Amino acid sequence: MQLRNNLPNTPEISTEELTLIDRYWRAANYLSVGQIYLLDNPLLKEPLKPEHIKSRLLGHWGTTPGLNFIYAHLNRMIRNRDLSMIYVCGPGHGGPGMVASTYLEGTYSEIYPDISEDAEGMRKLFRQFSFPGGIPSHAAPETPGSIHEGGELGYALVHAYGAAFDNPNLIVACVVGDGEAETGPLSASWQSNKFLNPARDGAVLPILHLNGYKIANPTLLGRMTDEDIEHLFRGHGYEPFFVEGHEPADMHRQMAAAFETVFDRIRTIQAEARDGTVSEGFPRWPMIVFRSPKGWTGPKEVDGKKVEGFWRAHQVPVSGCREDDKHRKVLEDWMRSYNPDDLFDANGRLKEELRALSPGGERRMGANPHANGGLLRKELIVPDIRDYAVPVKTRGADMVQTTEILGKYLRDVMKRNDANSNFRIFGPDETESNRLGNVFEVTDRVWMEKIEPYDVHLSRDGRVMEVLSEHLCQGWLEGYLLTGRHGLFSCYEAFIHIIDSMFNQHAKWLKVSSELPWRKPVSSLNYLLTSHVWRQDHNGFSHQDPGFLDLVANKKADIVRIYLPPDANTLLWIGDHCLKTWDRVNVIVAGKQPEPQWLTMDEAIRHCEAGIGIWDWAGNEDGAVEPDVVMACAGDVPTLETLAAVCLLRDAIPELSIRVVNVVDLLALQSQDQHPHGLSDEMFDGLFTTDRPVIFAYHGYPYLIHRLTYKRTNHQNIHVRGFIEEGTTTTPFDMTVLNELDRFHLAIEAIERVPGLKDKAGSVIAMLEDKLAEHTRYVREHGEDMPEIRDWKWKTSKTVG
Amino acid sequence: MQLRNNLPNTPEISTEELTLIDRYWRAANYLSVGQIYLLDNPLLKEPLKPEHIKSRLLGHWGTTPGLNFIYAHLNRMIRNRDLSMIYVCGPGHGGPGMVASTYLEGTYSEIYPDISEDAEGMRKLFRQFSFPGGIPSHAAPETPGSIHEGGELGYALVHAYGAAFDNPNLIVACVVGDGEAETGPLSASWQSNKFLNPARDGAVLPILHLNGYKIANPTLLGRMTDEDIEHLFRGHGYEPFFVEGHEPADMHRQMAAAFETVFDRIRTIQAEARDGTVSEGFPRWPMIVFRSPKGWTGPKEVDGKKVEGFWRAHQVPVSGCREDDKHRKVLEDWMRSYNPDDLFDANGRLKEELRALSPGGERRMGANPHANGGLLRKELIVPDIRDYAVPVKTRGADMVQTTEILGKYLRDVMKRNDANSNFRIFGPDETESNRLGNVFEVTDRVWMEKIEPYDVHLSRDGRVMEVLSEHLCQGWLEGYLLTGRHGLFSCYEAFIHIIDSMFNQHAKWLKVSSELPWRKPVSSLNYLLTSHVWRQDHNGFSHQDPGFLDLVANKKADIVRIYLPPDANTLLWIGDHCLKTWDRVNVIVAGKQPEPQWLTMDEAIRHCEAGIGIWDWAGNEDGAVEPDVVMACAGDVPTLETLAAVCLLRDAIPELSIRVVNVVDLLALQSQDQHPHGLSDEMFDGLFTTDRPVIFAYHGYPYLIHRLTYKRTNHQNIHVRGFIEEGTTTTPFDMTVLNELDRFHLAIEAIERVPGLKDKAGSVIAMLEDKLAEHTRYVREHGEDMPEIRDWKWKTSKTVG
Repeated sequence: MQLRNNLPNTPEISTEELTLIDRYWRAANYLSVGQIYLLDNPLLKEPLKPEHIKSRLLGHWGTTPGLNFIYAHLNRMIRNRDLSMIYVCGPGHGGPGMVASTYLEGTYSEIYPDISEDAEGMRKLFRQFSFPGGIPSHAAPETPGSIHEGGELGYALVHAYGAAFDNPNLIVACVVGDGEAETGPLSASWQSNKFLNPARDGAVLPILHLNGYKIANPTLLGRMTDEDIEHLFRGHGYEPFFVEGHEPADMHRQMAAAFETVFDRIRTIQAEARDGTVSEGFPRWPMIVFRSPKGWTGPKEVDGKKVEGFWRAHQVPVSGCREDDKHRKVLEDWMRSYNPDDLFDANGRLKEELRALSPGGERRMGANPHANGGLLRKELIVPDIRDYAVPVKTRGADMVQTTEILGKYLRDVMKRNDANSNFRIFGPDETESNRLGNVFEVTDRVWMEKIEPYDVHLSRDGRVMEVLSEHLCQGWLEGYLLTGRHGLFSCYEAFIHIIDSMFNQHAKWLKVSSELPWRKPVSSLNYLLTSHVWRQDHNGFSHQDPGFLDLVANKKADIVRIYLPPDANTLLWIGDHCLKTWDRVNVIVAGKQPEPQWLTMDEAIRHCEAGIGIWDWAGNEDGAVEPDVVMACAGDVPTLETLAAVCLLRDAIPELSIRVVNVVDLLALQSQDQHPHGLSDEMFDGLFTTDRPVIFAYHGYPYLIHRLTYKRTNHQNIHVRGFIEEGTTTTPFDMTVLNELDRFHLAIEAIERVPGLKDKAGSVIAMLEDKLAEHTRYVREHGEDMPEIRDWKWKTSKTVG
Repeated sequence: MQLRNNLPNTPEISTEELTLIDRYWRAANYLSVGQIYLLDNPLLKEPLKPEHIKSRLLGHWGTTPGLNFIYAHLNRMIRNRDLSMIYVCGPGHGGPGMVASTYLEGTYSEIYPDISEDAEGMRKLFRQFSFPGGIPSHAAPETPGSIHEGGELGYALVHAYGAAFDNPNLIVACVVGDGEAETGPLSASWQSNKFLNPARDGAVLPILHLNGYKIANPTLLGRMTDEDIEHLFRGHGYEPFFVEGHEPADMHRQMAAAFETVFDRIRTIQAEARDGTVSEGFPRWPMIVFRSPKGWTGPKEVDGKKVEGFWRAHQVPVSGCREDDKHRKVLEDWMRSYNPDDLFDANGRLKEELRALSPGGERRMGANPHANGGLLRKELIVPDIRDYAVPVKTRGADMVQTTEILGKYLRDVMKRNDANSNFRIFGPDETESNRLGNVFEVTDRVWMEKIEPYDVHLSRDGRVMEVLSEHLCQGWLEGYLLTGRHGLFSCYEAFIHIIDSMFNQHAKWLKVSSELPWRKPVSSLNYLLTSHVWRQDHNGFSHQDPGFLDLVANKKADIVRIYLPPDANTLLWIGDHCLKTWDRVNVIVAGKQPEPQWLTMDEAIRHCEAGIGIWDWAGNEDGAVEPDVVMACAGDVPTLETLAAVCLLRDAIPELSIRVVNVVDLLALQSQDQHPHGLSDEMFDGLFTTDRPVIFAYHGYPYLIHRLTYKRTNHQNIHVRGFIEEGTTTTPFDMTVLNELDRFHLAIEAIERVPGLKDKAGSVIAMLEDKLAEHTRYVREHGEDMPEIRDWKWKTSKTVG
């Protein structure tokens, strides 16, 4: 079976042009090697001496020449066709290549004037790379034109698709390394072509760079036959074109021809979709399979061992060049093989005929504004949250699906920003399940495969992205945000851990970006975590894990926020607030099941603005003296159980003075010097007292509250209950009992912690323990909670308002 | 192009046999529906009444009939060919199916005698499902024959391969749902065929179950054409066979024929590999693509809406059956459509002719000992760690690559257990990079694709598993351990976050398993995290994240251990110890760069057995009174910086009395009531005093130490320094300075925290601050650390021993 595409006869590509491109490529390679090795003597005006060499040789050469080769040829296409293109560099540790190519096109010096286009600038360019106080070794926020770090492999292609959505005139060239191609997230990313609509979205051109080796092994795809590669990518729905070899002149001709062909295909696909010729199915987008030697043009052998075309070229192909004269000679020969005098003038400036090869202005990939998305970001148009407020006349009387209310708000956000095409909702097949289904009144799920007549809310133009891969949801959204748009990721709480490491990397990106004045702010990454630990009625233990918040709290304080709204009106305020922020990661945890509602909209606004507060309608302190006990809560289920515990206590021990504190902005618990939202010690002490017992019911693992509050005066008296890793499929209330977060345990602990009360209230404790036992008997008998639990209502002690 | 396999003419499969299998399948379906719906009236001896129906209807029907269909046909193959087979159920929420099928074959009642094979047992079987105090809704540790939960989708196939390695006589049938097939980890798992050696390993039979829908959407693979599916899996190196339709008789015949064919192929592949006929390349293993309707045999429509063959069949296809007479009628008709009287005798026992369809004894998939790996586990044979001890004559004098020493020990573990074929090392292309390369003296990396003459340490029989996917490493190892073997996963510290969620699920599995007496202990999951946060010279910020430990510390205390060995001898003891444990997750963090060595082997053994201790050779307290300050450390780099700080302090302020405490078993810091390794308060106070300042240099995020120690007497005085999310490519020492964990910051803080010392030692503080400034100038000038940092040695104040 012959599947493989044969490239058409090379169109009008002159040998002269290809020779120029080859020189441009050599210039990029020269600059890449210089960055890894040289402290000085950048133009090799004199023989290399030990003092010209860095004392620590760091960086990754192996992938770099291939990256430079692709960059140079993409420049040709941009110039010839006036394309708007960005370059996603999957092998991000090929940082020297991205830096070299953006330096050659002039963008680097525009952003960093100190790195000028002359010998002195080149010296600094070399020196700063992977050097203390300089730039990191990977493509990074510091790198012009980059929206992708690539240090953690797996996310290049999904970032590329995220960038292309709703950018009809953008082409995202995405280099996928064959190491990266082994990862799970990248393996799934190929499916993104089934979510890209050529009529409204841009194009992604995947360039699978098979250089055959990882750190110390061949790669799986590198060793696959072309036939298997062809099958695999046809199976994924692509049309692969092969560029293979090592002889530069031949490779230039192949690559130029392949690019002519694939950019023609892209133009045709887009034209047919946009003029309506084709309106069914997803197109067979072209892709390039680029086989070139690892460490191409570098030393063939060092000390008798194979280097070029092998994994030994992965990092620094020849080491010890400062100490070892022979190795230094290898380096010098290697660098001179690029013939720097043929590339740069006497002042170190790229020769004019080569300068002419890069596009101009914002067409340069290092200067394309899509890669600095904050430049293009438009504020989201949001409605007034008061229009969606749940009326609360009697506290806790009505049961409302909290996330459903947010869904109505999101529907209108979707509608109001439709003309700007800059808002999408992402989730692993759970938008409806998470009760956000109202958005389907104004949009659909995007679906490019076949649509059946009985399908529901699927269309080619949908703005809800659903796929059963948290990695894809996260990666698409990152790419979408980094190119200047807005979005929300709604996810089952437990499974957000699947993207822990992607979250880490995005938080790192934001931290570094926010320190670079030329990087403009991008919209925050907003998570709505629902179907949370306390309500996994269908699924049980595997779906019960609230630990993502612990991970988030480890990141730089000015990047992260954690919100635990107790009801619908607070969720509305928080959702609205998060959508308006930038350069942050906002995590909202809110249940999707019917829950009692506590605060009016006005109260919710005040409460959320403060982030934390006393619910005086719930407590019974007289205000003159400190209460006997503080019942604190964070999260919807803990709030419910705390209020139920307060009722039990107030009924049984009316003389007990109780304060209820609710926390909605979790990091307010931290000190002001640790987090910008942190309360001052005075305010904290004002809420939690300096010496009264605090019974704190918390949504997640209890330890987080301790580590947030350990510096507070009253910390010794803060007793936290939360999820202690006891789970299964059982009733919602039984889940709280198994983890001792239920009303009865809370009330018992309050009694036990108030000095002197335990002895007096022994009969109350006995009553509460009986209730616990009665619950357990009942639930095991009936499979549901006791009526008094199911029908429990807050006893309004003060009227609302 | 016609690729699709045409099945051969059906071999001798009698219609009578298929009719029996159909009845068996109906019995499994009947029992599955019963579990979701019924409290009583299990055999439908009377019409269904409201009180027969559960009050909360929970579970997942959609995938279940397909799972049952496959199970019944696998039974046929096991019987006919006397196969040893286990069943990995990717759609783990099809729990009712796994329970039903193991009940029908008798294993369920053998393990849980209370669930007997009669009407009363069936009633209990139904009632317990997803019921408080009963069993979870998913395939779970409670489910006989399961090594896979499936609640978090993505890991079925990688678990299956892990189980098959080194089990030449085992066949692992693995059902992959089309929802799961969208995930990243599953997408990458197909590549596992390139690591399975048919000569020494068992076989994996992937059965891709395309029922077309997820929770509320079609699936990507479900909507793909057969041609694309064929391409995709041929590209992955498989030979796919299609079984498609919905008419049961036809489907039975197709499935029986397909299984005959694929099991023939498996036999041929294994025979050719084992007799040496084929010794190159990886075989084209067969797989099944099974297209059947979601919710097959369930209600076609409910309330006029399509259910069977659509996503509405995903969970409970008809709800409200207790309250709604019409819905109850739908349920009753549905259950009666299976004709229970034709399946079970009057006592509720499966009829004899159907009982005969399941294999016997340990051939039953619910009773195969491989799925309860502890039954088969052999202790690992380990050498004496003293044979690998690093001699320490002068403390800190010699620089040793700590992990390299462990590598020698691991080499000999590998050698000693070679005959048992039950130990493997897993890692994402980093075994050599992590300095464990000595293992390659006795084994290789397994590689089934082409091997070139210049390749290094690749072979078909290697016992080191390297692939650039942490997901695959983790999943293979889990499958390997759960089937009774041993292993170690060595990983870059930052990227272990990629499998956070898999770790969570495995920890949950261990927690539940350890509560089930019939589940025998399996070997611990051992992580060696190296290339850690403090030594990312080549890579920088993206590679700097020590947060995995925070995640681990959230899990049940009896499941997890965290070790931070400060040198090679301690690492040897810990590595050896971890390999001998069971039912735990052990996390070891140790650097791979040359580091000073502190303890003799005898001291290391004593120190590690205690988990924490005073290094009296490092401090200068006289023992009669409490020291002025405690300098505590956990982790190799923090230990080095602490000892350097102690030197600075002892030189500058000889009268300052210092105690040095080193923590190697991190969870010893917790209270005894929180962790089995936790120190008593007395012992803790004995080490850390009750009132002296403690300057604690810690490897990871400092907050973890606070949350482990917040209950301790002296917690207010514990001042922790660790990684505060400042990173880049710089020198190792500069990394500690950026995070204020370096010797100078530690010494300054010690002076500031000792009451009254700051005023007296102002000049010392000024000297230390000058040193910091000098460092920063030097490192930015030279790109390496000052000689006094690079050449620093501990001043031995007491002789060793």
